[in-house]
Amino acid sequence: MAVPGPGNSIALRVKSPSDVGAASALAAAVGAAGATLTGLDVVESAQRFLLIDITCNTADAAHAARVQQSLEQLDGVSVQSVTDRTFSMHLGGKIGVVPTVALDDRDNLSRAYTPGVARVCLAIAEDPAQARRLTTKGHTVAVVTDGSAVLGLGSIGPAAALPVMEGKAALFKHFGGVDAWPVCLDTQDTEEIIRVVKAIAPSYGGINLEDIAAPRCFEIERRLRDELKIPVFHDDQHGTAVITLAALHNALRVVGKELDSVRIVIAGAGAAGSAITRLLLAAGAARVIVYGKEGAVSAGGEQPDPNRAWLAAHTNQSRFTGPLSAALAGADVFIGVSAPGIVSEADVESMAPDAVVFALANPDPEVDPAAAARHAAVVATGRSDFPNQINNVLVFPGFFRGLLDSGAADFSDAMLMAAAQAIADRVTPAELSAAYIVPSVFDPGVAPAVAAAVAAAAGPASAPAAAQ
Amino acid sequence: MAVPGPGNSIALRVKSPSDVGAASALAAAVGAAGATLTGLDVVESAQRFLLIDITCNTADAAHAARVQQSLEQLDGVSVQSVTDRTFSMHLGGKIGVVPTVALDDRDNLSRAYTPGVARVCLAIAEDPAQARRLTTKGHTVAVVTDGSAVLGLGSIGPAAALPVMEGKAALFKHFGGVDAWPVCLDTQDTEEIIRVVKAIAPSYGGINLEDIAAPRCFEIERRLRDELKIPVFHDDQHGTAVITLAALHNALRVVGKELDSVRIVIAGAGAAGSAITRLLLAAGAARVIVYGKEGAVSAGGEQPDPNRAWLAAHTNQSRFTGPLSAALAGADVFIGVSAPGIVSEADVESMAPDAVVFALANPDPEVDPAAAARHAAVVATGRSDFPNQINNVLVFPGFFRGLLDSGAADFSDAMLMAAAQAIADRVTPAELSAAYIVPSVFDPGVAPAVAAAVAAAAGPASAPAAAQ
Repeated sequence: MAVPGPGNSIALRVKSPSDVGAASALAAAVGAAGATLTGLDVVESAQRFLLIDITCNTADAAHAARVQQSLEQLDGVSVQSVTDRTFSMHLGGKIGVVPTVALDDRDNLSRAYTPGVARVCLAIAEDPAQARRLTTKGHTVAVVTDGSAVLGLGSIGPAAALPVMEGKAALFKHFGGVDAWPVCLDTQDTEEIIRVVKAIAPSYGGINLEDIAAPRCFEIERRLRDELKIPVFHDDQHGTAVITLAALHNALRVVGKELDSVRIVIAGAGAAGSAITRLLLAAGAARVIVYGKEGAVSAGGEQPDPNRAWLAAHTNQSRFTGPLSAALAGADVFIGVSAPGIVSEADVESMAPDAVVFALANPDPEVDPAAAARHAAVVATGRSDFPNQINNVLVFPGFFRGLLDSGAADFSDAMLMAAAQAIADRVTPAELSAAYIVPSVFDPGVAPAVAAAVAAAAGPASAPAAAQ
Repeated sequence: MAVPGPGNSIALRVKSPSDVGAASALAAAVGAAGATLTGLDVVESAQRFLLIDITCNTADAAHAARVQQSLEQLDGVSVQSVTDRTFSMHLGGKIGVVPTVALDDRDNLSRAYTPGVARVCLAIAEDPAQARRLTTKGHTVAVVTDGSAVLGLGSIGPAAALPVMEGKAALFKHFGGVDAWPVCLDTQDTEEIIRVVKAIAPSYGGINLEDIAAPRCFEIERRLRDELKIPVFHDDQHGTAVITLAALHNALRVVGKELDSVRIVIAGAGAAGSAITRLLLAAGAARVIVYGKEGAVSAGGEQPDPNRAWLAAHTNQSRFTGPLSAALAGADVFIGVSAPGIVSEADVESMAPDAVVFALANPDPEVDPAAAARHAAVVATGRSDFPNQINNVLVFPGFFRGLLDSGAADFSDAMLMAAAQAIADRVTPAELSAAYIVPSVFDPGVAPAVAAAVAAAAGPASAPAAAQ
């Protein structure tokens, strides 16, 4: 199912005979190889030859090789270099640490460092709450992973997870003005992870857990929320739940249905599926069935872990046990955070009129969105190349900004729901349509709106609890 | 002994009757109160009054209050606000995290984050050495403390230590181009510290241990150097040792003596004193006596820890057991990294002709440097308000830059000595004098020279060992 995309963009430097049709012929060859041309520049024009830089999106490395072959089959054309633009961008990493104070003369040095800094240290030793005011703690978040469930890649370990955590840190600053730092742990032991995060917590105003496998992630989050005085937020759970609730809110506005009456089928009982279920129930959804790998989660019988037991006790009141396709028949909403291709076009066709389908498995959704759109009224995916991208980046920068601004010691369902409502409300009634249920990730108003909603939901009472 | 300094600089906004002599009178009042005027600006001039901003250096908070009183005793003058410039500078902390790649459109987002980043993750999973090339690891250092021996303030804990660690991180970037991140640990247990640092190590190219109490710091450094494949460097030990060796090298050039023949007395057997002793011995010093709190370290009898046993075995060959003042009689060099006021002017007078005195206790040295200078040929302190400031900032930015550039997995005595020589050599023969034995901390050539010397001493063999 791989299609050309900017994540597989390549840059080629091509030498071609000097000819009025040369550039057009190269462009045509790129198209003939199935790649998407995104740029073409003649960088040198000599009497006998041209040097031309071409950028294009490919599907994968094999496809990139076919593009190169397609160009070299042209008469006299040679490809001098091929650069993978994603790897080029990653050279040296994606974040840096910068001083935010002047260090240019002896007086400033005496204030920022010794001897002046000693008085600031003593002020914090006397009143630990001053750390939020006099250090980076007040605007800094740790992005913590054990590398056990990175994107869809599985357990690739801490070093290989670092590019994702750096990317997340970059997004935190770019979209939310939050200073975030990657913490990639060389352990996958639950107790050890809890111990290490507690040990490093003093310099952070919040902890964003990321790409930690279920069910370990539930225990780690629960314990850290209990034992630390700063908010601990597992983005794969709550970030996904918030953006899903925001999108569902607007999707239901489009089709004119109400959350408390629609029948919802959720595929995926891991971190994301569980958190989505909990938040939808908190927001008023009443008719929810969750599917794990073994089928419908249902009360009665043994549950593998406390999270599953909670889901069994709070969903699927009728104890339905049929296959996913049977549950979808007549359902109003399908939310998939599971695996590619588990839903067929016929399954979508069997849903209730004006059905809503969120097929969020990445990079390949539960059902081909084009096929789903032939029957459902609203279709959303996790991908940027289809309408309605359900993307956590709409949530976490503003959510943490709000937590930090309010000095909150923890977050609540009320704050998650307030964030979802703020995101949904960024789409005006005039803009709202089946193809536009969530704002653009580049809408600069999203993060401030989310931050304000979260801080308001946190209330003034949360600030005094903030000292750590 | 507190004297006015920029670490205690205050800014006052003063309202004064409009009068041609008003500004001069205010300036005189500041001087009369014993503060050092550093700036005066008339910010508003009305018919009946003037608003004047004054900045001045004070000795401490009580002195700042006296300056305010001195101003308010002038006819019609009121002080409207007093701001502590050190605290003002620390508002919001001193470092930030910034993206170093463009995130401004969907294509760049697809490369920096999902889906493109997944291929970078896989490349590192297949070949972990790629992490140095494709992430921040290659230029990033953790500044790790347990808050147990912060400056001269003692065990003030991790939150109160954060301003120092942030300051250090800011200096790392400003002087060495190294991205450093503060890691303030909420534990002072040796095994726990080792475990946590090992757990967080994958995303760093080096570890700078900072302000960890002796003797715990020795065990922590030794174990981490053994067990990690990135360099682990306790700056209070080795940074101090390198700058001391550099300064001593130039001091001995000034007085025309040789390291292998001078008699050296070191006060302080903790982190700094031990590392200085070890490095001086490695560099060729042969006649060294070290004083701890209980007197001269000497072989025979029980030693409290392995570090002390090493010192006893390698110094004080004649097993001298007299007091410090007796050891100083006839000594060529005194190096103090201990406590204020333990050496008298008479002790310095009793040293050999052309004596060298490094009184490095901070903020108050072992002997008043002005008194010492009446008898010794060369005097140095850790303070910025006397000549010859012995400051680690001349070492750690360039030292780590060299370690990271060479991909070194550890550091060696040869690298420490190369760094010391590079610093010493930044003072040209024409510049060298009793009042100028180390380069300015603002000499932009120091860090690159140190980095090059360290990388050269590391040699090409170190790079392949760098993968972690």
